[in-house]
Amino acid sequence: MELVECVPNFSEGRRPEVIEAIVAVARAVPGVRVLGTHSDPEHNRSVLTYVAPPEAALEAGFAVAREAVRRIDLREHSGAHPRMGALDVFPFIPLGEVPMARCVELARALGARIASELDVPVYFYEAAATSEERRNLEKVRRKGFEELCEVIGTDPARAPDLGPQHVHETAGAVAVGARPFLIAFNVYLGTANPQLAKSIARRVRASSGGLRYVKALGLEMAGTGETQVSMNLTNFRASSIVTVMDLIRAEAARHGVPVTHSQVVGLIPLDALLDAAVAFLQLKDFTPEQVLERRLWE
Amino acid sequence: MELVECVPNFSEGRRPEVIEAIVAVARAVPGVRVLGTHSDPEHNRSVLTYVAPPEAALEAGFAVAREAVRRIDLREHSGAHPRMGALDVFPFIPLGEVPMARCVELARALGARIASELDVPVYFYEAAATSEERRNLEKVRRKGFEELCEVIGTDPARAPDLGPQHVHETAGAVAVGARPFLIAFNVYLGTANPQLAKSIARRVRASSGGLRYVKALGLEMAGTGETQVSMNLTNFRASSIVTVMDLIRAEAARHGVPVTHSQVVGLIPLDALLDAAVAFLQLKDFTPEQVLERRLWE
Repeated sequence: MELVECVPNFSEGRRPEVIEAIVAVARAVPGVRVLGTHSDPEHNRSVLTYVAPPEAALEAGFAVAREAVRRIDLREHSGAHPRMGALDVFPFIPLGEVPMARCVELARALGARIASELDVPVYFYEAAATSEERRNLEKVRRKGFEELCEVIGTDPARAPDLGPQHVHETAGAVAVGARPFLIAFNVYLGTANPQLAKSIARRVRASSGGLRYVKALGLEMAGTGETQVSMNLTNFRASSIVTVMDLIRAEAARHGVPVTHSQVVGLIPLDALLDAAVAFLQLKDFTPEQVLERRLWE
Repeated sequence: MELVECVPNFSEGRRPEVIEAIVAVARAVPGVRVLGTHSDPEHNRSVLTYVAPPEAALEAGFAVAREAVRRIDLREHSGAHPRMGALDVFPFIPLGEVPMARCVELARALGARIASELDVPVYFYEAAATSEERRNLEKVRRKGFEELCEVIGTDPARAPDLGPQHVHETAGAVAVGARPFLIAFNVYLGTANPQLAKSIARRVRASSGGLRYVKALGLEMAGTGETQVSMNLTNFRASSIVTVMDLIRAEAARHGVPVTHSQVVGLIPLDALLDAAVAFLQLKDFTPEQVLERRLWE
């Protein structure tokens, strides 16, 4: 069965009844499976994660958007995290064999409904972006709601992809996108000095010339005698977790420092783990169909 | 959902209509998923693999037994493979979190029905064995049908666990068991000389003092410049594929020979691959619940 993941971020992290109402409209759509909700009162923001077949994912996405627009007034919203909308960001993420193009279609369809039925301006980002400049979410959102109110009608570079040429009075604007699954992956080094972790982070991350789909920071781990290379793998099929590990091990070994262990924060797609298993076992001609459980779950 | 795998072996590999009739009665039980059927005309024997919830697996098991008893006459059967019954061997294999004890119960229940309703003597083997001597299937089956006809009523060591003290005239006897999933795993070495493969096989296999749940042979691979360590991992949770690989790599390296690649023949449980992925990535505190797809398939 084709499945996609949706991770709507909305601008409410303090009022449980509002958060629950928004999650409830997603859960009410047949086929939707809610994997979790994370609310941050400091950021006054929540992240809902659900999985569904494409059409149900779209239906639930619109229900979430409508409920967020109804219940959240950005004029009364404060929080540490940058945001431009009541429903702030809505990415579609392909699972299994679903092509990215399918998620781009879904993002475009959701954006069209939000613009026409809710009168909220829509920006498409990442794989759903309409231009290269809009791929990066941060470049779309910039300083958020208050800034966007001023520039949306005057700066052509900030004009929405769909919807009115002004922000919605209470709900602002929304970024709808399609992107690969993001893996949060940390590797620990057997040294208390953070310099090596920082230098490895620079070698491995795209922004310093490293692997194209890796974001990385070198962090201290006070009191543990270790340091951490903290990473987001934003496209594990293109920049493999195996390559990441090989590169970090080689760099660390050159300095006589061992990799003590690693950690996956949250979920990881099976295919990323299969890449690592295939590397360890030197498997040849292995296909995911050989995984017993996949045969059962198809 | 609790699932078990069943791999009935029956003594017909030549008449397609008989093979299909036996497979059909399993498939007809609701909840049963047939993963495959392999028939060997040389051995005049077929192996059916299906997966089902425990009760359905048992129901289908009895249907397979009844159909095999009805349609196969061992007095007219010839083939290279040792066999003692029309339905020759029936193992239950736990999948996922199903405990082995559940499969032992299923084996005992199936054996009881075969003995009482079909009047066929039953031997329990491996985890379902009633004594240590009967754990090994080969020690239960020995020389098969013709020999068993002579000794079953006279040698107390060969008396069945359940059912009549004589073989069924046309259907012989059956071995019903419970065992872990078996992984067929081959590792290739970068040398044409089979001596190292043979020596590694001896080091790694239980029968020569190696890993308890590993069977291994060193084989020539004519014309490839390589040799093969051909293995069955009969309990991958106890004798891990990671340990197997570590041991083979260390032995091969000591002789300056590389492991060129490896190969899984047929299916492999996800947990065995996760062991390898965890080893490669040095993952700490990893739980299988972090595999995205498992969350979807639960």
